[in-house]
Amino acid sequence: MKEPVTLEAIVSLCKRRGFVFPGSEIYGGLAGTFDYGPLGLTLKKNIEKLWWEQFVDIRDDMFGIDSAILMNPRVWEASGHAATFNDPLVTDVKTKKRYRADHLLEEAGIDPVGMSLEEIGAMLSEKDIKSPDGNSFSEPQQFNMMFKTSVGSVEGGEMPLYLRPETAQGMFVNFKNIIDSFHPKLPFGIAQIGRAFRNEIAPREFLFRVRELEIMEFEYFLQEKEWETAFEYWRVQIHAWFKMLGFEADDIKEVEVSGTDRAHYSKRTLDFYFKYPNGYKEIGGLAYRTDFDLTNHERESGQELHYLDPETNEKSVPHVIEPTFGLGRHVLAVLAKAYDEDELGGETRSVLRFSPKLAPIKAMVSPLLKNKPELVEKAREVRAQLRKIHPAIAWDDNGNIGKRYRRQDEIGTPWCITIDFDTLGETPELKDAVTLRDRDTGEQERLTVDEVAERMRIALA
Amino acid sequence: MKEPVTLEAIVSLCKRRGFVFPGSEIYGGLAGTFDYGPLGLTLKKNIEKLWWEQFVDIRDDMFGIDSAILMNPRVWEASGHAATFNDPLVTDVKTKKRYRADHLLEEAGIDPVGMSLEEIGAMLSEKDIKSPDGNSFSEPQQFNMMFKTSVGSVEGGEMPLYLRPETAQGMFVNFKNIIDSFHPKLPFGIAQIGRAFRNEIAPREFLFRVRELEIMEFEYFLQEKEWETAFEYWRVQIHAWFKMLGFEADDIKEVEVSGTDRAHYSKRTLDFYFKYPNGYKEIGGLAYRTDFDLTNHERESGQELHYLDPETNEKSVPHVIEPTFGLGRHVLAVLAKAYDEDELGGETRSVLRFSPKLAPIKAMVSPLLKNKPELVEKAREVRAQLRKIHPAIAWDDNGNIGKRYRRQDEIGTPWCITIDFDTLGETPELKDAVTLRDRDTGEQERLTVDEVAERMRIALA
Repeated sequence: MKEPVTLEAIVSLCKRRGFVFPGSEIYGGLAGTFDYGPLGLTLKKNIEKLWWEQFVDIRDDMFGIDSAILMNPRVWEASGHAATFNDPLVTDVKTKKRYRADHLLEEAGIDPVGMSLEEIGAMLSEKDIKSPDGNSFSEPQQFNMMFKTSVGSVEGGEMPLYLRPETAQGMFVNFKNIIDSFHPKLPFGIAQIGRAFRNEIAPREFLFRVRELEIMEFEYFLQEKEWETAFEYWRVQIHAWFKMLGFEADDIKEVEVSGTDRAHYSKRTLDFYFKYPNGYKEIGGLAYRTDFDLTNHERESGQELHYLDPETNEKSVPHVIEPTFGLGRHVLAVLAKAYDEDELGGETRSVLRFSPKLAPIKAMVSPLLKNKPELVEKAREVRAQLRKIHPAIAWDDNGNIGKRYRRQDEIGTPWCITIDFDTLGETPELKDAVTLRDRDTGEQERLTVDEVAERMRIALA
Repeated sequence: MKEPVTLEAIVSLCKRRGFVFPGSEIYGGLAGTFDYGPLGLTLKKNIEKLWWEQFVDIRDDMFGIDSAILMNPRVWEASGHAATFNDPLVTDVKTKKRYRADHLLEEAGIDPVGMSLEEIGAMLSEKDIKSPDGNSFSEPQQFNMMFKTSVGSVEGGEMPLYLRPETAQGMFVNFKNIIDSFHPKLPFGIAQIGRAFRNEIAPREFLFRVRELEIMEFEYFLQEKEWETAFEYWRVQIHAWFKMLGFEADDIKEVEVSGTDRAHYSKRTLDFYFKYPNGYKEIGGLAYRTDFDLTNHERESGQELHYLDPETNEKSVPHVIEPTFGLGRHVLAVLAKAYDEDELGGETRSVLRFSPKLAPIKAMVSPLLKNKPELVEKAREVRAQLRKIHPAIAWDDNGNIGKRYRRQDEIGTPWCITIDFDTLGETPELKDAVTLRDRDTGEQERLTVDEVAERMRIALA
């Protein structure tokens, strides 16, 4: 029976081996921010690359963009975020510490979904819920989760600006640009991978609830009558994506979001939950945003955001289906899915069972002994040859070979290749063959370098 | 004689064809922000990929990271940015419009380098420099260029935060993490491609001076005595990089930055200027930052930021060489270098002469006629085959073939492949051959699809 993975074990491995570090760590951190180290960054890039290939590159109906984080503040008036992107907060009347009122109710076993501010306040009083310091709370207040800044301008004075809390508005604001430059026919999508910022009062659970996040998503524009078919089509595609990442049926749970709990713009929303070490939690979503955003931007900006049907010559504001994927949450899910502890050769080891495509390091090449120049030279040659297939081929000649293998297991390197005296011809029938060691089974095979290269090429294609 | 390229021609092409749009354009924009459209994003990604391959992937001494934009504010105390990352501004006493005092002096032919605030003010008075509205100015004041925001926290109150004005501090703050996780030997580098924000009072010149920018750079840590050798080594590498982008000797000018004009942390700085359409301007730099940053972070954070030499067992704070490259400025430089207008077949055309590696679209495949299913089917087959080499193979069956070629010329697609009746066997000796049309010369060749594929493979390798 496999031991359940804990979030702590993943956090610890991430820091120890250079996947993810707490942000600004030498200063005691900055809650809700994280810095990706070399291995975490490569893992993240591998996920991004796969996503982009799958949802943008291989399709003719998808347009990728990269829009600015700073946007004209009227964008957030039109989108509704200035008015409604709020969390209900209460303040401990003595310590002045702030808490999420809805989370306090949840922790007391009460479902806050759909409650008004007044109802939340009344419920906190009724149940006599106190702060961790034993004090009562102020009345709940709405707290806007957008980070606010301001920009100096030659026109004088300061203009308030927000850090975007979502990437989607970048797509809506560029709808007209894409139409004018590319003349796509409906349905088509505008995709983006980018950062967003949310002033979370209580960031927590590692990469799960953060203040600086990355989102992979697209807005898929279509005629209103097509929305149900498209919603179902993308639901299936999203499951195919999770399967491609190696997630199994039990890893993903689909949750229909009820009317009262849906975002202000959505007429139907499915949340996709991943089975994280600390429970099923949201990793992505699928929302039918209707024509809410384009219509509002049209009104607020005074620009026509219409689609002109080239056959019927009819103008209309397209409707939108939006599949969204949290990138940090994907990194965490891939790590959680891959993390394992087992016994190999009588020793306990921790291992990340990444697929070759996702693994940050594809293979490690190693001379059996570091003080034998002929082994080192041959190993360098082998590494150079394998690097023509993929640059992420590591080198390790430190310590004994068993320890080198363990180090690679822990960071999820699928293959280790060792050059020994047989490779150099000590046993004539083994000449030019290397040892290929499999991460998951620990089994070793004797293969030529060309055979190793071919195996890698197939697995990475 | 080639006509000089204007910035306006590039801006216009960028918008028309979907490279780069003004940020928040439907709201009249937000000065100093830009949204990359599909082609601009792909071009930018191609530059990033080449840079990362060259400076990170193929090296064993470089560690890539991706650190958060929001950092603990003490980072900016230690780095000196809170105190010194300022521009001198003056205000028109009547209109209250703000201006860069140093730019006003430059425009009047006076070099403001090294002047104190008082000296700048005195010089403005002495030369009787007025605002464009004819009014006098207030005394110059320092204006900090960091965007400021604040974060809500459960500890109560608000903590002031800044949007990072440079990416370098992410590397310094993670120096200890990289040492602890990877145990590298000196010299080694920490690299990052990321966003930074500067509250420029007067953003201008398209992608050149913006408020939201992207930087490709690394901090190369070494022993103090190695700095001059390393400085020279990286100077040469930077020139090799520009050459790889297709820049010629005359495109790049190296400028030694004088002591008074150097950033507060630098003991030697070279600026690299590119010959933009509006003159030579900075595209990158090379700075010797000494041990300024690590020493300051050590003092401010109380954490040891030492390197322990494994041979001598001596502890020391490494010194740093920093090569920096503006990503947006690279995009603009590559566009400017590639942009051309010439005459082909008696018609004037605009063309982007991108190298195949940088071109956003590698090839376009086209059936001669869109209403002949057998042509369309064959063309689809050819496209599918070429997409195995690279996904960015476009399809165009609109209008006559000459117009299709022109459209691809304008976005810099190196090759166009046309499938006609000869491909299908109308002329037996031409069967299965396609027309390969070269962007730069307009010349056409008859080749098999395998030959086309091989040519692409070689050019993209």
